[in-house]
Amino acid sequence: MQFEQITVVGVGLIGGSVGLAARGRKLAARVVGVGRDPRALARAVELGVIDEYSTDLARGVAGAQLVVVCTPVDRIADVILNAAPAVPRGALFTDGGSTKRAIVDLVAGRLPDGVEYVPAHPLAGAEKNGVEAARADLYENRVTILTPTAAVGAAAVERVAGFWRALGSRLVTMTPEAHDAALAVTSHLPHAVASAVAGATPTELLGLSAGGFRDVTRIAAGDPTLWTAIFESNREPVLAALAAFSARIDEFRRLLAAGDGAGLARWLSEGKQVRDALGS
Amino acid sequence: MQFEQITVVGVGLIGGSVGLAARGRKLAARVVGVGRDPRALARAVELGVIDEYSTDLARGVAGAQLVVVCTPVDRIADVILNAAPAVPRGALFTDGGSTKRAIVDLVAGRLPDGVEYVPAHPLAGAEKNGVEAARADLYENRVTILTPTAAVGAAAVERVAGFWRALGSRLVTMTPEAHDAALAVTSHLPHAVASAVAGATPTELLGLSAGGFRDVTRIAAGDPTLWTAIFESNREPVLAALAAFSARIDEFRRLLAAGDGAGLARWLSEGKQVRDALGS
Repeated sequence: MQFEQITVVGVGLIGGSVGLAARGRKLAARVVGVGRDPRALARAVELGVIDEYSTDLARGVAGAQLVVVCTPVDRIADVILNAAPAVPRGALFTDGGSTKRAIVDLVAGRLPDGVEYVPAHPLAGAEKNGVEAARADLYENRVTILTPTAAVGAAAVERVAGFWRALGSRLVTMTPEAHDAALAVTSHLPHAVASAVAGATPTELLGLSAGGFRDVTRIAAGDPTLWTAIFESNREPVLAALAAFSARIDEFRRLLAAGDGAGLARWLSEGKQVRDALGS
Repeated sequence: MQFEQITVVGVGLIGGSVGLAARGRKLAARVVGVGRDPRALARAVELGVIDEYSTDLARGVAGAQLVVVCTPVDRIADVILNAAPAVPRGALFTDGGSTKRAIVDLVAGRLPDGVEYVPAHPLAGAEKNGVEAARADLYENRVTILTPTAAVGAAAVERVAGFWRALGSRLVTMTPEAHDAALAVTSHLPHAVASAVAGATPTELLGLSAGGFRDVTRIAAGDPTLWTAIFESNREPVLAALAAFSARIDEFRRLLAAGDGAGLARWLSEGKQVRDALGS
């Protein structure tokens, strides 16, 4: 048993899967859920995702050695700062946020003595949302990125790393800035592009689509509110990734307009080479 | 038995799946494959995809009542025109090409009396290629689009429609122009976009990607030569689809740069609405 109590704030897909995995792997004597909607939290208890719950943040974190914040990214820093006075000395915070720099900046220097925040981003998720979609294996064989600043103690980092590792994930450590730049390219840009393809398609043509369209646009079904918060908290890196993507699209347009078949084949091969390196 | 002999020209994923399905459903007494590579054709016989083969087009189509041309789109018209003098009177051509107008234009008015071409596009495929990927159920519950011009006899259309229906697909009929405009939006543009996302991603970041990136870029693994031919034979509709997509991306860029959260949420909701209409 690594922890007496883990509290998960935000019991949706991400937080719910943390709860399920932590309970399944017996990482805590009890997992407490905190949220706004008592019915959703009662349902989470029913599903075995958490042991008990509170809609009051201070009460929910009072006995926790580890608080895992899984709210939308624009609320993570506030949750940490509001909860920090209520946790026991020595308690650790971590999170599941898709962006890191904005959160780290807001929290920096504002935690009480003996309380630390080790920022995390498990690279797992889906176009689905809500606790009903939670899975005990969501983090298995997935990468979890930690972005601790120099101010965070090595023992805290190791304890939180051990937690994410115990959920089955492989750890990568980098700066918040490097994280945000990388994820802008590998996650946030693809989301915007998928949404743009879907949004540019008249619904009456959907019957004339096949598997390719389905794959490319799948993540466009994601929650608009969650994704708005992600884009807004990672604006500059997303704009930079968008510029690189647009340059590549412009090259395609130019080759196609010019009837440059050899150039198009080369352009397509470059994309294929990257995709083939990823595997199926 | 609908046909004494069906000849499939181009025995890869598309043609091989036609062969497997036609044999499995006993639509022909024999299925003959025509291609360039005798080893690949011998392998197709081994896999049960065709009964026999020839590397000589005229010989391969000599006894066929139906010729299904499944070569890359830039060779389909030539294959039909070269094979037409060798088929029996009353023989029908159809194809599996992803674009239609260019092929229809090249063939129009150039077939011998009593030989007709009913253009088809089964909306099935994959990022895989080659006969090893062929599947008997590739066309089951898929849409196949027919684009016969007014010059094609109703009996010929009905016979070819019956063939594709017998492979399990649902039929839609439209003009070649309407087909090409629709597929530019639902297939060709998404392919270019997937390839652009992959091509704009440094390979060292692939380890920091998750399922979303995998989905969005999956079709970028497709054959660059096949796709170059598709783009080149559908240039103007693809450029038009690209313009609509780029306008949508520009709107995203503007909203993000302006910090317009409500606008971003609306923009994402529009894409989600289209994707939700498609179903998972």
